This record gives sequence, structure tokens and C-alpha cells, in this order.
Amino acid sequence: MQAPISPFRTVSIALAERSYAIRIGSGLLGRVDTWAGLPKATTAVVVTNTTVQPLYAAQLKTAIAGRFSRVLELALPDGEAHKDWANLQSIFDLLLAQGCDRKTLLFALGGGVVGDIAGFAAACYMRGVPFVQVPTTLLAQVDSSVGGKTAINHPLGKNMVGAFYQPLMVVADLDTLQTLPPREMSAGLAEIIKYGPIVDMVFFDWIEANLPALLARQPEALAYAVQRSCEIKAHVVGQDERESGLRAILNFGHTFGHAIEAGLGFGVWLHGEAVGCGMVMAAELSRRLGLVDATFVARLKQLISRAGLPVVGPLLGADEYLHHMRVDKKAEGGEMRFVLINAPGQAVMRSAPDALVREVIDVCCHAG
Amino acid sequence: MQAPISPFRTVSIALAERSYAIRIGSGLLGRVDTWAGLPKATTAVVVTNTTVQPLYAAQLKTAIAGRFSRVLELALPDGEAHKDWANLQSIFDLLLAQGCDRKTLLFALGGGVVGDIAGFAAACYMRGVPFVQVPTTLLAQVDSSVGGKTAINHPLGKNMVGAFYQPLMVVADLDTLQTLPPREMSAGLAEIIKYGPIVDMVFFDWIEANLPALLARQPEALAYAVQRSCEIKAHVVGQDERESGLRAILNFGHTFGHAIEAGLGFGVWLHGEAVGCGMVMAAELSRRLGLVDATFVARLKQLISRAGLPVVGPLLGADEYLHHMRVDKKAEGGEMRFVLINAPGQAVMRSAPDALVREVIDVCCHAG
Repeated sequence: MQAPISPFRTVSIALAERSYAIRIGSGLLGRVDTWAGLPKATTAVVVTNTTVQPLYAAQLKTAIAGRFSRVLELALPDGEAHKDWANLQSIFDLLLAQGCDRKTLLFALGGGVVGDIAGFAAACYMRGVPFVQVPTTLLAQVDSSVGGKTAINHPLGKNMVGAFYQPLMVVADLDTLQTLPPREMSAGLAEIIKYGPIVDMVFFDWIEANLPALLARQPEALAYAVQRSCEIKAHVVGQDERESGLRAILNFGHTFGHAIEAGLGFGVWLHGEAVGCGMVMAAELSRRLGLVDATFVARLKQLISRAGLPVVGPLLGADEYLHHMRVDKKAEGGEMRFVLINAPGQAVMRSAPDALVREVIDVCCHAG
Repeated sequence: MQAPISPFRTVSIALAERSYAIRIGSGLLGRVDTWAGLPKATTAVVVTNTTVQPLYAAQLKTAIAGRFSRVLELALPDGEAHKDWANLQSIFDLLLAQGCDRKTLLFALGGGVVGDIAGFAAACYMRGVPFVQVPTTLLAQVDSSVGGKTAINHPLGKNMVGAFYQPLMVVADLDTLQTLPPREMSAGLAEIIKYGPIVDMVFFDWIEANLPALLARQPEALAYAVQRSCEIKAHVVGQDERESGLRAILNFGHTFGHAIEAGLGFGVWLHGEAVGCGMVMAAELSRRLGLVDATFVARLKQLISRAGLPVVGPLLGADEYLHHMRVDKKAEGGEMRFVLINAPGQAVMRSAPDALVREVIDVCCHAG
């Protein structure tokens, strides 16, 4: 006799009374038992976007229909440019117009933008209603849906208005990755690659060896990559939920990356693309500070490039880069702080001389 | 030899790592030592309103100036109608334009509106910066500044978008009550009277006996009323920070009160005025359910009236009342839930038949 095979792998995120499970597997969205353990409520609201809605909203709604008296749906426009107050407000408008109470359960079905905005709506509506993350992009499955960061953008800065607010559960259905555009796959790979230099070079070795399988979207390779990424993220977040220290290492590549996104205008490069290129720049800065050698930088750059990501930054000019980096959330007292690689597999937070940062920008950015 | 007299009374609010002190006394605002124990930071931002600013902003800024490299100031328009997204956004605009980082300390100097909106801004800016409540109205000192409820209003409902977010400290300077308009004094008395029927009839007796002293703004009477109110609120919030149960009793009078505010348009009646009248209606509903007798209702009504508060509701029609009560945050599955008086000094949460609620509205509301 064999025990029944569980339809999913589970990674747990340990945050005392806010602990929850990340369920990873194929075909999870449409299974009724995926959603077992969620509280019953009168109303569920599926918040999604106009791209994901026709692909996956119906199966999710059918699978959860038995748990609620009604399941409402709201599709936001797709893209980072819409992670703003107006769309957040449209969620509140629906919830109030439909008389949704404090027990209403929100499902964030989509990528990082949907997860961030629906999660922030859940954090604020009536001072907090429960929500579930249902990430449908690789980036959201390995990074943004895990750990409770929610936010909207402000015209003067990305993710500047938000909350730490944990979901009840994360369900990563690997099948949704099969419909993902190649550019989005590459963007997700950037956040997977990230975990290597900062924490786990054994995982980095594995990614190097299995990149073709990941790009071919082989389910077993995807399952392991998502699982290991979530394990690392869960471990870090479990020690520092509100980013008072350690958690900041997850922002490797993000300081330069945010400057690229902000400088070009949000949405021109995908977040993951900017992070990919930002990691090359942060590694180069680490090298110039004597922390890692040129071989390591070249190896990281090669993997990022093989993943289909840009490794050369846009030519915005160093002043423009520095301007955007100074409003980064990690800055303190006007001083920029970078996540750098102290040694392969080990991150460190530190400042760097402006002159050195300018050198890195000059070396890493060319005209498109 | 006598020990030096402490310039303030302290009430502690016990919430594990989010615990903090409420300091109550005269002349606290302008004393440097009032602010001892706050973290040092590059920037402090005093958020206030255009009424309070000319009265108290300068002394606060002088007293805290030594702790920060710079102290910025933002005065919002005064009144409940301005507790909205546009004014919240104006706080974010300032913080970002001035390059305020994650350690920036916000001071909410004003009444409940300032405390709610500045507190919510602190909860959301960069996913949370520290803040201090400096309530300058009686209502804010005895109720809204304590316990971490922050929010803005939505066109479809009051306080519908917000967060539970605790301040680092509450400083209630009793001297600020000397400049309060009489109507605002009465509004604050409503929230003080509230604590009697729900928790402490000994305090209710004391208020009955000392109402003339409170109305005359005698410092000793004010100090005791603020202290005892904060003690009761701290005790309740310490047991149920996020209002999963017990804390809801603090909303005695608020279900009917919110309907009055919403029905007339926010700001026509002050919040405390609506709560005062709402308590009469909730007491009358309690009586019709057989929980308390007519003598108790009459006694409560008399005290509320003596405090200068309305005890007759506006003639909005029962349908209008019910409409607004159904979007109350305490409602579940479309069923209204009321904080009622089970016995003097003891509150209970329960639903009530619509017909009985309509009777109460008919009896308690007349044409102005």
C-alpha cells in the first residue's frame, strides 16, 4: 500500500500567529481541496487583472464556490503603471458598494502587481480583512507573493505606500506558468537567481545546470526552483518580518534596479529585468570594493544573460541614477545603502562612496 | 525631603513589543523632558491642522528641536470632511518631496481627525514609520489617540480604510483643553460618559458628581477623567488589540451615531455629539430588549444632556438610519450588531430585530 501522493509541496512560513503555508504544485487552482482550511465567509472577492481573468478566474471561482454565499470578481488593468491609488480605490468602491464585511476573503489572482495592490486593499479595508495570494507569474510565485509586503506606487516613488500584511495562504499553481510570455519568465528567473549570491551558492549551481529545463518550463524543474526560492525567502522573512535588518538582503539588485525602472518610467522594463541588470551592477560595485573577484561577477552576469535578461543598463546618466537611488526605502539620512555580495552566498548591507557608484554606472550602462 | 513631583500621570498600554505610555498632565507640550525616550532621527514631521497650528505647533517644535536635524510641519484643513485620501496623499507628497526616510518620526498634533489621518500615514509610509499622538481635544485625549486605530473616510463610509497601528507614545497636555470650543468639550464628554455604562458605574457616579467641574475645565477634574478613561481603554485594548471581540464594546452609541453622522453628512454633527445621542438610542434599544430599566435610560439621558449634548436624533427616517447602519464595520453577513447594555456597567454585543430598531428610531428622533 502506498500513501496517497499529496498534490502539492508545502513550504511553511513561521511568523507565530501569522504563520501560513505556501502550496506549490500543478493543477492546484481548480481543485476544491486546495482551498481546505480557509475560513468560511459570506463573500469572497477575486481581484485579478484583465490578462489573467480570461485564463484562470473561472476555474478558481468554481473551486471556491462551495465555501461562500457569493464570489465577486474585479479585474484591474494589467501592468505596474496601474498599481496606484485609483485602482486601489476601485477595490474599496466595490467592497463597500457590495456591502462586504470584515470577514470577506480577498483572493489576489495574478502577478506581483495584483498581489501588491489586492494585499494592500486587504490590509486597509475596515482595518484588515483576510486574503489569499494566488500568484500566476514566476516572479510572484518565487518572491512577491511570499512574505507579506504589500504596496502601491506613489508618483515620487515605487512601493512607497503600503503595509506588511500576511496572507492566510499562498497557492502557486505551476500550470499558470505555461501561459506566461517569455519576457515574464525571464523576469521571474531574475528573482530566483538572486537567492544564490545572497544565501545559497549550491542553489546557484543548480540553476546554472537546470536553466535550459527552466526556460523549457519543465514542471519538475519549475517545482524545485519555486520551492527552494520560497524556502529561502520564508527563512529570511521568518527572522525579520518587518525588514529591520536581515530581510533587506532580499533587495539585492533592487537599488540599481529601482533607479532603472524609475528613470525609464515604470513599466518600460519589467521589474525582474531591472533587478537582473541591477544585480550585475551591485556585483560590480562589490568587486570594486574588494569583496568579490571578477570571475564571480562574470559568472553571475553570464547566468543572468542566459536567462534572457538585460545585463547592460540604460544610459540615463549617473546623476539620474543617483537621484532615484536616494529615495530608495533603504536610504537613511540621505545616505544610500546597498545590498552587496561579501562573498559568494553571503550578502552584506553597506554604503559606498558616490565616486565608486558613478564608476559602476559608467561601466555598466551603454546607449541602447 | 520630598520626592520631585512628576509632571505627568502615566497610563500604560500593554501590547507586548508594541506597548507604550500615555502621559497626562499640564504644560507637557513645551517641556523637553516630555519627549525623553523617543528615538533620535534625522527628521520629525509635525502634522497638525490650521486651527491648532497657531496655538501649539511652535511650542512643540521648540521642545523637540534638539532631538532632530530638522522639524518639518504640515497643517491640514480642519474637520472630519478633510479626513480623506487627498489629505492623506498630501502627507505622502511632503514626506517624499523632502526625502523622509524610514526612521522619520511623525507627530500627530490635533484632534481625532489629525490623529487618525497622520497615524494612517505613519502606518503606510514606506510600510510604517514611527509616530507619536499629541491629542489636543478632549475626545482625542480620552479615546481616539489611544489604542492604535487609524483611518480615513471613504465616500461610502466612515473610517472604512485604515490600519491598527500603535504610536510610540501619547502625550495628553491638559492645558490644550482650555482653548477648546464648548461644543468640542461636550463632544469629548460623550466618550468619557461612554465608559460608565459599558465597564465602570463607579466612574459614572464620579462623572455625575463632577460634571460641573469638568465643564468649568478644572485641571484636577480633567486630569482624573482623562486618566480613568485611558485606563479603561488601555485595559480593553490590551485584551483585544484588533477588535476580534471585546474591543467592540467601546463602540457603544457608535452604530446609531455613525448613522446620524452619515445621514446628515459628516461634520454637521460632531462625532461626539452623534455618539452622545447614539448612546441614548442604544440604551433605549437595550431597555426594549429587557436588559435595563427605564430608570437607567433616564439617568444616562440626563447626564448626556447636562454635558451639553443632543439627546434627540435628527429626523432622517428609519430607512435612512438602517441603510447607514448596515455598512457599519460591526455588521456581519448583512446583519447589524449593536453594543447594548446588559446591565449598568456591563456591555454586550448582539443583534436586534429590525422592527425594534425602527421603534427606537421613531421614539428617539424628532424634527429639529
